[in-house]
Amino acid sequence: MARIVMKFGGTSVADIDRIRNVANRVKKEVDAGNQVAVVVSAMAGTTDQLVNWVNEASPLHDAREYDTVVAAGEQITSGLLALTLQDMGIAARSWLGWQIPFKTDNVHGAARIKEIDTAKMAQRLDENVVCVMAGFQGISEEDNRITTLGRGGSDTSAVALAAALDAERCDIYTDVEGVYTTDPRMVPRARKLDKITYEEMLEMASLGAKVLQTRSVAMAMNHNVRVQVLSSFAEKPGTLVVDEDEIVEKQVVSGIAYSNNEAKITLVGVENTPGVASEIFGPLSAGNINVDMIVQNISEDGLKTDVTFTVPAADLDKAQDVLKAADAVKYDSLIGDSDVVKISVIGVGMRSHAGVAATMFHALAEKGINIHVISTSEIKVSVLIDAAYTELAVRSLHTAYGLDAEE
Amino acid sequence: MARIVMKFGGTSVADIDRIRNVANRVKKEVDAGNQVAVVVSAMAGTTDQLVNWVNEASPLHDAREYDTVVAAGEQITSGLLALTLQDMGIAARSWLGWQIPFKTDNVHGAARIKEIDTAKMAQRLDENVVCVMAGFQGISEEDNRITTLGRGGSDTSAVALAAALDAERCDIYTDVEGVYTTDPRMVPRARKLDKITYEEMLEMASLGAKVLQTRSVAMAMNHNVRVQVLSSFAEKPGTLVVDEDEIVEKQVVSGIAYSNNEAKITLVGVENTPGVASEIFGPLSAGNINVDMIVQNISEDGLKTDVTFTVPAADLDKAQDVLKAADAVKYDSLIGDSDVVKISVIGVGMRSHAGVAATMFHALAEKGINIHVISTSEIKVSVLIDAAYTELAVRSLHTAYGLDAEE
Repeated sequence: MARIVMKFGGTSVADIDRIRNVANRVKKEVDAGNQVAVVVSAMAGTTDQLVNWVNEASPLHDAREYDTVVAAGEQITSGLLALTLQDMGIAARSWLGWQIPFKTDNVHGAARIKEIDTAKMAQRLDENVVCVMAGFQGISEEDNRITTLGRGGSDTSAVALAAALDAERCDIYTDVEGVYTTDPRMVPRARKLDKITYEEMLEMASLGAKVLQTRSVAMAMNHNVRVQVLSSFAEKPGTLVVDEDEIVEKQVVSGIAYSNNEAKITLVGVENTPGVASEIFGPLSAGNINVDMIVQNISEDGLKTDVTFTVPAADLDKAQDVLKAADAVKYDSLIGDSDVVKISVIGVGMRSHAGVAATMFHALAEKGINIHVISTSEIKVSVLIDAAYTELAVRSLHTAYGLDAEE
Repeated sequence: MARIVMKFGGTSVADIDRIRNVANRVKKEVDAGNQVAVVVSAMAGTTDQLVNWVNEASPLHDAREYDTVVAAGEQITSGLLALTLQDMGIAARSWLGWQIPFKTDNVHGAARIKEIDTAKMAQRLDENVVCVMAGFQGISEEDNRITTLGRGGSDTSAVALAAALDAERCDIYTDVEGVYTTDPRMVPRARKLDKITYEEMLEMASLGAKVLQTRSVAMAMNHNVRVQVLSSFAEKPGTLVVDEDEIVEKQVVSGIAYSNNEAKITLVGVENTPGVASEIFGPLSAGNINVDMIVQNISEDGLKTDVTFTVPAADLDKAQDVLKAADAVKYDSLIGDSDVVKISVIGVGMRSHAGVAATMFHALAEKGINIHVISTSEIKVSVLIDAAYTELAVRSLHTAYGLDAEE
């Protein structure tokens, strides 16, 4: 007998039929003798409708009222799932954020979790009552008002609850069957991974593999919560996100991620004087622009240098304006380009395995793909290339690292 | 400067445009220097949607979960109205039942109000913050869960809040312009009343003039809350529901009400023995059937009697089954008839004014309308007639008592 947390997203609870399907999944875990806490999102479409109303009512809205309105979505689902379970003869009750209480700070709209008081819920779990918690919401004790964790916060709610309940596993049910070696819409031979480490998942998530919220993965890693990503529509095991120690045979490369939410800026002919980097990146940081990859090439005479870096595509114009306004930065010309993509190969095994980067450069060169920028970290090698080559690059690397599924 | 409560029903807050209209009405009261608490219903259609989902999820549902789901409707409106007011530059915040707290017993789905702790809200009102309370909902401290007051409970929420805040007036905004002498859809010359007493309003409300919930009128009477019924769409004064003392020139008859939710049962040839009435009505009472009008005619020889009474139309079959199963009741035949209507003339003035009933019987006789049952109370005379004569009877009586508006 184990204590588990199951989390279902908006498409999994979009209507009463789907909620009944969710209840059946819960029933299986109950029948297997498990204590089950469930975390639910709002029914698909509900949050968007509520957010639209809020924006119509007040474009520059009070985040406290936003939270009050939007949290109603998860409240509705939690009650409906508890009712559906009861209708199947399973003891169940709903828990709203303020009832637990699920305590957060008072940064409404993007609150951080402070403490989850699970004493009462744990007692009900021991009595074999399924506890259905409304995701995404908490309470700020400072003002006794509803808070929300920000969009996608239900994953984080679930992982935090699993940590607080000391659950054996946190199952995140979604509309995909797990975590893949790469985007299966782009590469038909992408394989579902049985296991992936927190660190690899963090890199995958932040690079646009939209399976799990980055924040929930970081929380799972910090509290050592075993997370499983699986489909609410297919009856198959999904992908386990776990600590590195749990994976005996580590892959050198676990996956290939890509992100086209990047833009490149090159400053040509920058005077190579001490402090020039801080003169360039200081104003960008002050302007709240997140700089990612950075390379600097020193010219032959050592007097001038070219600096290239990437920023989020949405910030490209702003970044160029900031740089043009920064008088201290001397350069010959500034080139902005948002038609680029960042491709990353990710794997904890590369810590102990040489030649990963070389394999990447070779595979790309073979296809005639030019690399603009390279950056590496302990478990990742990333390159920036022209966006037009995205699919060719991802497919080639997927094959080069032996990730393709058997035909 | 006065403290007032304004209540807006579902059609008045059906979308953001209407909520903005409501906010304008609130702004006028604020600009006039008043302290304003607002009570809102769910947006029209929302409650029905939520109730349908609950019934789909679980036909025999747990009332605690029903309350959790359905209360979300008023929660949404309270946040949206607070936002809309803020957008107009008016300080405002929403209050949910559990935040006030609006304490009730734990009879979920039909909770009774125990106590409203208005200390914090009163402080905000003194700071000229508009307080928008979600109607219809409260909290049961016994189980720390959301309760609802039952359908239409928002009127009761508003009157209870007005009593707790010692407000000068409770304005109930609705989709009609006030209380009329009779149903204006049936009688075009019906007049809007400037004032009506609590007792008259109670009779009108319970007889199907669906302007105010009976329960809210009874609460207003008990706590002496001055209630005004008015339209959220027209800028006109409505009808004040007040204590009799506030009405100097009392009408003998204030209004004509009708109810077609009645059925008549006649037991012909009942043995006229002591205790026969209790043998008839005891089983009906035990079967939770509400008996209204009762008449008994003794036959010439005094040995047999006919007993006629009314029950709610929905209970007609059940009542007949109960009587047939009651062996102690001896009668020749049982006649049930749901094709009847109850017409009532209502007015506190009839306490001190004779001839009201005579005028009624005369007016009906003149039109050839046969009266089946008569019952009277201090401020009301009711007759049961064939349903086909409803409109003719109401129009004739409206004219007979001088209630017609001038052409």
